Amino acid sequence: MSGEDFCPTFQSAVELIGRRWNGAIARALLQGALHFAELSRAIPEISDRLLSRRLRELEEAGIVERRVEDGPPVRVSYALTAKGAALEEVIAQVERWANDWVGAPR
Amino acid sequence: MSGEDFCPTFQSAVELIGRRWNGAIARALLQGALHFAELSRAIPEISDRLLSRRLRELEEAGIVERRVEDGPPVRVSYALTAKGAALEEVIAQVERWANDWVGAPR
Repeated sequence: MSGEDFCPTFQSAVELIGRRWNGAIARALLQGALHFAELSRAIPEISDRLLSRRLRELEEAGIVERRVEDGPPVRVSYALTAKGAALEEVIAQVERWANDWVGAPR
Repeated sequence: MSGEDFCPTFQSAVELIGRRWNGAIARALLQGALHFAELSRAIPEISDRLLSRRLRELEEAGIVERRVEDGPPVRVSYALTAKGAALEEVIAQVERWANDWVGAPR
């Protein structure tokens, strides 16, 4: 096996999905759009500050879409784009693997 | 959605797989066992020091198995355990998503 088999596209995808909390955010949004406070409750361990940062990064990556709802009061919600929604199969496979193997014997 | 939907098992799995280079290491070993130098060539950007550390972590997580081949010369190779080989579907889905969406329009 040589370096020619290395796949930068795979590498950037797996790092993006695996970056701390990104998987949990995408998983929570698979159920539908959420407001910031709902997302924050859905992922108890993340701070609001880090959640904001991750949402901005996921927006820049084209995975999450920020929607400003007409007010008053003006509210913001977050939803998966088509690119984000396409992560459903990845997330399902990670869940399957985790259920089968994490905490289980080899 | 509430914190009750948060899944720590999913979280630890996605962080393990997504941790920098772990996905690439597992992907390289899906083809079969490799010696250290072969793995190092397969992932051009990783330093030998970091590759060693990641291999130890993956061993501790039960994903990679270190095999000492009878010498001389004594050689060490690395292979996926059953738990590691079960990542094949996860990796295939990440590749599919990356090919479909990374660098592509939303």
